[in-house]
Parts: sequence; structure tokens; C-alpha cells
Amino acid sequence: MGILLKNILAAVPEGNTDVIKETNIYIEGSRIAAVGTQPEGFQADKVIDGKDRLAIPGLINCHTHSYMSFMRNVADDLSFMDWLFGTIDPIEQQMTDEDTYWGACLAIIEMMKSGTTCFNDMQMNIHQTTRAVKESGMRAVISRGLVGSGNDEAGQMRLAQAYEERDAFRDCDRLSFMLGPHAPYTCDDGFMRIVSEEAKKNNMRIHVHLSESESEISQIQEKYGCTPIEMADKNGLFDVPAIAAHCVQITESDIEILKKKRVSVVTNPASNMKLGNGFAPVPALLEAGVNVCLGTDGAASNNSLNMFHEMSLLALIHKGVRRTPQCISAKENFRIATINGAKALGLEKETGSLEAGKKADIAILNLNTPSLTPRNNLLAGLSYSANGSEVETVIIDGKITMEDRKVLTLDEELVYRKVNEIIARMGLDKKEY
Amino acid sequence: MGILLKNILAAVPEGNTDVIKETNIYIEGSRIAAVGTQPEGFQADKVIDGKDRLAIPGLINCHTHSYMSFMRNVADDLSFMDWLFGTIDPIEQQMTDEDTYWGACLAIIEMMKSGTTCFNDMQMNIHQTTRAVKESGMRAVISRGLVGSGNDEAGQMRLAQAYEERDAFRDCDRLSFMLGPHAPYTCDDGFMRIVSEEAKKNNMRIHVHLSESESEISQIQEKYGCTPIEMADKNGLFDVPAIAAHCVQITESDIEILKKKRVSVVTNPASNMKLGNGFAPVPALLEAGVNVCLGTDGAASNNSLNMFHEMSLLALIHKGVRRTPQCISAKENFRIATINGAKALGLEKETGSLEAGKKADIAILNLNTPSLTPRNNLLAGLSYSANGSEVETVIIDGKITMEDRKVLTLDEELVYRKVNEIIARMGLDKKEY
Repeated sequence: MGILLKNILAAVPEGNTDVIKETNIYIEGSRIAAVGTQPEGFQADKVIDGKDRLAIPGLINCHTHSYMSFMRNVADDLSFMDWLFGTIDPIEQQMTDEDTYWGACLAIIEMMKSGTTCFNDMQMNIHQTTRAVKESGMRAVISRGLVGSGNDEAGQMRLAQAYEERDAFRDCDRLSFMLGPHAPYTCDDGFMRIVSEEAKKNNMRIHVHLSESESEISQIQEKYGCTPIEMADKNGLFDVPAIAAHCVQITESDIEILKKKRVSVVTNPASNMKLGNGFAPVPALLEAGVNVCLGTDGAASNNSLNMFHEMSLLALIHKGVRRTPQCISAKENFRIATINGAKALGLEKETGSLEAGKKADIAILNLNTPSLTPRNNLLAGLSYSANGSEVETVIIDGKITMEDRKVLTLDEELVYRKVNEIIARMGLDKKEY
Repeated sequence: MGILLKNILAAVPEGNTDVIKETNIYIEGSRIAAVGTQPEGFQADKVIDGKDRLAIPGLINCHTHSYMSFMRNVADDLSFMDWLFGTIDPIEQQMTDEDTYWGACLAIIEMMKSGTTCFNDMQMNIHQTTRAVKESGMRAVISRGLVGSGNDEAGQMRLAQAYEERDAFRDCDRLSFMLGPHAPYTCDDGFMRIVSEEAKKNNMRIHVHLSESESEISQIQEKYGCTPIEMADKNGLFDVPAIAAHCVQITESDIEILKKKRVSVVTNPASNMKLGNGFAPVPALLEAGVNVCLGTDGAASNNSLNMFHEMSLLALIHKGVRRTPQCISAKENFRIATINGAKALGLEKETGSLEAGKKADIAILNLNTPSLTPRNNLLAGLSYSANGSEVETVIIDGKITMEDRKVLTLDEELVYRKVNEIIARMGLDKKEY
């Protein structure tokens, strides 16, 4: 299958930044065959007219819990620990595998409709998010969330599940797997060491929550006399490539550790504000040279998986916190949401930019929209004025998964109905509005 | 013309809050005839099926500069004074009346498509925004921006224009007018006093920028030995009902003045962050009982006029600043974006809620969308997960102005083309991407 995006404005890398230029993009099979000049022997089975359109690399959502989408808006205006242990946990106790499948389907629809083509997920019920990813044509990196204490049975059972799921989906090359020790307040030091050893032995990356809330900091300080990042480092989590979500409450020496151990930090601005955790020191992380990428977190704490919304937050809030309008430019922000994410996931040779040889993971936006008019500075438009609804067509792994804003690979109406049924079954639709 | 919104979920006031309930809404002429029971003699010329839909009062954007939409994304990542005097001012020097008309049309399209049915505008070129409002079916409150020094000719000329425009549009009852002394750093104390006297004499409200940037604070402190809010108060601006935009850098005694003089404060979170001005103390203003409403500011400093985006910012950022997830609930946020805005504009008997007797200013959202699935807590959804693209139908003054996301009263494609032409004429499309 050959697809030609003809005479289209596109965001393409040039040195260490991205520029917008009119070009042709040639897709053969799952990959971009060329940007610019037609490759020899290329045959277009389908031509997409680039008039009034902008092609960008699909956005990369580097931290989410897709199954949680069925819990969107169920628990607002609560403190972090009340939110997690008082509301979310009890729902998770009664959810079935099917519930998590439909939640993941809803998440994928929301992400696709707002230009995300790859996400990094931490989940609880194996074979469900993976199934939704496989069916939908999405790209994802999956971690079974690991909770454990030393060598206990619960931790070992979850580790076994992580491997079982990885092995069961070897046939889908849009899926890859990490090990996901949940957080220092749910995994003790002994279990962290076991997970680190497993990751090294199996050549897997680590996906972990670190330094999210003040209560986490004080718990870990009390228990281990150090910061969560120091605790993770001491127990070997950073001896393999690691991606640390949140990192809101961190010290200068934490930043030194993250830099030295080449840990990627996923910042989740909406979730961090919504749960009252504050603002991560993203400008300081960038100044230190840490690879920063962007995530929405789950819909129970955001409550959206729209990466355009998240990009606008990241571009705006640090200008406010630092009172510096130059802080995190639109160009920097765009890289954070694309290629930096690919690097964090070890996929920088596969996705994250529109370049020959990479997978064809592309979002095409309609420029005949108020938010992208005029067309003077489209990279700024992506950060500051677009809301995601401009995305019209999505191509993942060379296949068109959304066209004219209709998802082709999942039944949208069925998913909305199923998710509404889950909430009704749990009695959560009766919640006072 | 009678319109029936049949069996529709609707956000309706109940005491001091809003609730979502299924109901019928009967529209006769420009007004809501009833919510709930069919009024005697009602005839529906059009029935809108409420299945899978949510009706809300149209959002009220309480501070913008609609003509600036043609300058969207032209000046990013600059300090406030460089932004205003280095970039925006020179563009304003070369813009024509026609340019500002097309800018206002673009603004109205963007606002309508994201559920805003009324906006409070400060502009420079008379008869242009007003013309766009009249043609588009929008509701707006207009202030000709006034800049002057004592009794100088420039100030008097602008005052005369304000009256000329008000008089020219007396036939359009969707338009009302305020006097708009621009700011303490562009109007001296003598001119502020003249404008205050004019407002009192003519029974007009005041729309003013106050305490936006640190440089404004220091300029006013140096010149008058007081804060901008004290300066405005001393010169009589608050002796008529006033709406003050920004109020970012304010003291406790400023808050006392705002409260005592019943000044409404429009907060503009995106603009304040983007220009590096910081975060307004909105929770403190609310605690003091000040009427707080919400605005986008112009597209040159936001860069969006989407009130859903602005609502999400307002609901999130203060939770981050105060590290308190309970700070500004979804319910409070919804009132800030609707009825509080109507109060600030003196239109609380006309718009801002779905109640019999008020003008029919209504946005209808499609609930079969990922951001509003599941349907468990739709007021939270409006603040945290909706992005504005869920708005499908807009009714203003009893007339359908948008249907199936197509604006019926303006030619969208023509407006996009015209705005792109303006930017090309000014050479701003050649700006490095």
C-alpha cells in the first residue's frame, strides 16, 4: 500500500528544531519512504490532497493509564491520597477485565481524535489494553503496574503477568513492553531491587511514578531517609533506561541523579495541578539537559487524554510560574510532545518525527479552522491555539486509522455506550452532578 | 418562531449552584418561554431532539479584543512591554478598518464554535466589531478603547467615537456599550477623571485593564505613589459599575477596594501566563466575595478565544498554585464562565443561565464524544475534559446561529481566506516558522 500526502505543509526536523514547509510525503507499507522527492518505483494507491492541511508526527503521550478513561470525572476536587485510596481504589476493586478493555478503547479513541499515535501505559488487567491497541491500530508501550513487598507472592504474580502479556503479544510489533514498578510508596526497597534485576536480565526499560505528591516525599523520607528519586536510584531502577512520571517535588540533587542516569522525565501538568501536587520544575530539568517528555496521566486525574490540551498547559504554566514569557518556547514544546517522547520510549528510530525510514505515524490537521487561522506561525498554533479537534486524518504504522474525524478501527458509538453502562452498573451515574 | 429542545439534559440553576437534569426547553421569539412545562399556546416550528445532548447557557467571554484575532500567533514568547509596544502596536498602525472587521469575524466564528454567545470587547476601529456582531447574530458589549492625557484632543476624539458608535447601533439590541479607559499607563489621572464623569453622566459602565504586569505597577507607583487599582479608584472609575481585566499583581487593600466598590474582576489565565505576568489571586478574590468572571483576552496574547480552554485553565492552575485540589470547584467555575459574566456586564436578567424570561442564548453539546463519556458528572466534564469542539448547535437571541458545527450567519471559508490575505499583505506570513 502506497499513500502520498501531496503538496502538504509539514512539520519536519531541521537540525535541533522543526520547521514547517510544503512538501510531499511518500508512505510505503508501514514506513515513510521519503519526504520531498518521490522514491523510485513508488506507486500511490491513495493520494491525500495537502491543500489547507498540515502534517505533523503523531503526538506521543508518555504517561497514561488508558483503562481509567471509564472513570473520567468520577473523583474531582479531592486530595491525592483521598483520590487514590478513597475513590479510585474501590472502583478498581470491582472492575472487570471487560471494563478495562472498554476504558482502553475509549482512551484510544480520545487520543486518536486529538492526534496521538503512541502512548505509554501503566495498567492492572493484562491482555485488555493490549487487545484494544492491537485492534485499534494504535502504537503503545505497556507496563503491567507492579506492586510488591520484598519477594512476596503478590509482586511475583504481577511480574509473571507482565511477562505473560509480553509473550502473548509478540506478534504485534506496534506493542512493546516495560517493567512498571508502581511507585516508592507501593513497592518496598526489596521489591524495587528485584524488579531492577529483572529489567537488566530481560533487557527491559522501567516505567515508574516518582515524587508526585508531598505525602509521598514525607513517607519515603520517614521510611528510607531519602527522596523517592534517591530511593529508586539506590535500588537500581536507573541502571536500565528509565522513564519517571511526575517528578514534581524534587531537589537539585534529584535533578543531578536524573541527569547522570539519563532518566527521561514525563511531566503531567494537568494531573499535577488537579490533584494539588503543584508544578514540576520543568525549566530546570530542561536546563540540566534531562530528556523531558509529556503525558496526560489517566482520565481520572486529568480528566482528558488530549495532548493538545497538555501541550498548551506545558507551554503556559511555566511562563506563569517563572514570570518569564520566553520559558518553554513553542518549538521546544513541540519536540517535548514528539521526538523527546520517542526517545524516552526507546522508539526514536521508529517514530516521533516525519523522516524517511521511520514508521508512518502522522496526524493531519485541517487549517481551515479558526484556531489555526492565520497560518503565520503554525508551530505556535499547535502549542497555543489548537485544541486537537483540527486533527482530521490519522495514520499509524502506515495505515489510516481515522479519516474525516471518524475512527475506522473501533466502533465509537459502541464504546461510548459500553462505558456509560459500566458507570451505571457501578452506580456512579447517580453521583450528584 | 418557536423552538423546542426536547428531552434534553440541561444545566439549570438551583439555588446558588447549577444542576444537570433532563427537561424540555421552550423558546419563543428571542426568549426562553419555559424550562420544564410547556407554556400555553406554545407552537414548535422546530424541534431539536435532546437525545445524547447537553444544553448549557452560552458562555460569556468577559474580556477580549476580537479584532486581534488576525494577529493570532504573530508575537510569542515576548515580555509584556515588548509584546505590546514592539510588535502589536506596529501592526495596529498599519491595520485598516476592513482588517479589524475580518479579525472580529474570525473571533466570532471561533467563539461560537466553542459555545460562547456573548463577549465583552475593547477595540480601536469603530463600526467594525459592531458590524460583525450585528451580522453574525452574536451578543456583545463594546468599548472603544480610550487613551488620553488630561483634556487632550486625542482623548476627546476617542470619547466622541465611543458615543458615535453607540448611537449608530441603537437598532441592534444584542449590542450594548461601555466606556473603556484603556489602562493607567495609557490614560493619565486627568483623563481618567473625565471618563468617570462621562460614564456617570451617561449612565454607562466602565471596562478597564488594571494591574496586569509588574512594569505597570512600578510605573504607576512611581508616577502616582499608589497601585493601579488605587489610582483608578481615586479618579472615580469605580463610582459606576466597573469591570476590571487582569488584576494579577494586587494587594490585600486592592482587594478591599474591589470588594467595597463592587467591581467585577475578569481573570484571563492564559494571557497572564503567556505574557509572564503570573497568576491572579482568584481564590482570594472569591473568598472576599468579589464577582469574578472569565475572559480569554485577545488572540495575540492567548492565542485562543476558546472559553472551554480558559475554563480548564482556571479550574486547574489555582489548585497548582495553592496546592489545594478543592480550590475552584467545577461548579464554581461554571458559574464564573456564565452567570458571573452576565452580572459583570449588567446582563444578569438577560443571559447567563437557562431560565424562563431570559434571552435564549444556548450552546448544545454532543455527549457522544470521548471527552464527555461517561456521563456521570457533566459539570466536571465541562471544566476538565471538554475542549469546545463538543458544541454542535448554538442559539443566540432565540436564533440558531450554528448547526452541526456550521456557522450559519458568517461565511467561514471566506473569513479564513480574508484573514490569511491580511497577514500576507503585512508580510507576516513570511515570519520564520
